[in-house]
Amino acid sequence: MTLKMDREDLTAFLASHFPQVADDFAIEAVKPFEIAVRLHVGDKNLRPGGTVSGPSMFSLADVCMYLAVLAMIGPEALAVTTNCSIDFMRKPRAGADLIGTGRVLKLGKALAVGDVMIHSDGMDPPVARAGLTYSIPPRR
Amino acid sequence: MTLKMDREDLTAFLASHFPQVADDFAIEAVKPFEIAVRLHVGDKNLRPGGTVSGPSMFSLADVCMYLAVLAMIGPEALAVTTNCSIDFMRKPRAGADLIGTGRVLKLGKALAVGDVMIHSDGMDPPVARAGLTYSIPPRR
Amino acid sequence: MTLKMDREDLTAFLASHFPQVADDFAIEAVKPFEIAVRLHVGDKNLRPGGTVSGPSMFSLADVCMYLAVLAMIGPEALAVTTNCSIDFMRKPRAGADLIGTGRVLKLGKALAVGDVMIHSDGMDPPVARAGLTYSIPPRR
Amino acid sequence: MTLKMDREDLTAFLASHFPQVADDFAIEAVKPFEIAVRLHVGDKNLRPGGTVSGPSMFSLADVCMYLAVLAMIGPEALAVTTNCSIDFMRKPRAGADLIGTGRVLKLGKALAVGDVMIHSDGMDPPVARAGLTYSIPPRR
Repeated sequence: MTLKMDREDLTAFLASHFPQVADDFAIEAVKPFEIAVRLHVGDKNLRPGGTVSGPSMFSLADVCMYLAVLAMIGPEALAVTTNCSIDFMRKPRAGADLIGTGRVLKLGKALAVGDVMIHSDGMDPPVARAGLTYSIPPRR
Repeated sequence: MTLKMDREDLTAFLASHFPQVADDFAIEAVKPFEIAVRLHVGDKNLRPGGTVSGPSMFSLADVCMYLAVLAMIGPEALAVTTNCSIDFMRKPRAGADLIGTGRVLKLGKALAVGDVMIHSDGMDPPVARAGLTYSIPPRR
Repeated sequence: MTLKMDREDLTAFLASHFPQVADDFAIEAVKPFEIAVRLHVGDKNLRPGGTVSGPSMFSLADVCMYLAVLAMIGPEALAVTTNCSIDFMRKPRAGADLIGTGRVLKLGKALAVGDVMIHSDGMDPPVARAGLTYSIPPRR
Repeated sequence: MTLKMDREDLTAFLASHFPQVADDFAIEAVKPFEIAVRLHVGDKNLRPGGTVSGPSMFSLADVCMYLAVLAMIGPEALAVTTNCSIDFMRKPRAGADLIGTGRVLKLGKALAVGDVMIHSDGMDPPVARAGLTYSIPPRR
């Protein structure tokens, strides 16, 4: 399968459909069934002690998977997250962005399933991992 | 078991330790092993179509469980979320707050486990549910 | 909504479609969106120390949800589990059956979502809880 | 880190501690933080249509992670599964064994976290994936 949306397409889609959060994310790379997305960590993502909040990590996992699915099926589909199971394993490094790398493991007609590994930029052991399921509505 | 922190204690704790998000939440009620927390839904929580974002629902589930655990063990403990599995079931109602009701199902020395049901204020069927695990560090 | 299959229907369905495991389970009660199922704990379910194995608890959660969904949609549908997130909280009591109580929280056209609480028969605090998602294939 | 238990040690441990299920599994390979385990699929694992049951896949994921953790910490530790979130993605191939490949992503003092990918032997796309958390009791 080939990409229906490349890095530029996905970036433009994010800016037009999710203007409230588009600036927080940068798509680093995308290829069939795989994506890497950077979360620019700013003050609003931090918690006492300089760590990154759980909701920020969740949102990175969710964006990763969403864009990886869109890259394969195109912008017309309105995929919605139905399940996310996320393990928080280590404290993210203070002052570092987060990088999420997502894989689409199944791309069915009605459901897409994948996982995302999250690292602090420049740190080897992962800080979190998530499995996500998306529901893909029937095409009209 | 009795509460080590009541509604006022938890509200003050949230304001002093999490000033960035404290205004988003209001503790509606707390009793042993149970809590209800309101998320004041504002522009930053919304997504196109008037629905509430996934990360907003995640953060409500996380805050519910965190405060329900603190209510039982007191403010000195630094509990961290280790796992959250969340099912998104229905689109939240536009213009309504979200109410999370949490239960602590296990309160061990090292781990606390519970679940949270999320409703749009005034709507009967739940919009999301989550199971969460917290790691409770050993007391010094 | 009313039940499309009652306790007798579900018991007969289990016996005819899943003969390998039907004897392990007894449906205690079923009503719209709710079910209670007993797992007859035998030698094959036990682990050293007299506790019940994780796979046995998983299978009880899975059967609970499956039958609760079938009760609502009828036997013609071939629902398959797509996700299960299970928390193991306490050691089940040696020599006691397990009782699973399931709730269907969402019954959509394509997906059903619910949760199951598992108790050792006669013991109050739950031993496990699970959230499950089922995919319901389109009717022909 | 080096292995505290190799393939032979783990096989012997399984046979002595879990005689009821030891014959179902074969450890294919183990190295630090990684393992591959085969489930010999037999009649008791099958479901109508020739597919492998969900509990069989769950038990493979659980055994994978358990043995991968033991390989790192040694046989004296009594690790217990506290959470498993499993996605069932495709129907396993009839008549083929299942191969689980597990990774330990975090090995802390109190908690170990990892994930497992499950394939039908000789089939490329995975049939299931799971994230698991283990609680490691304090050493005496």
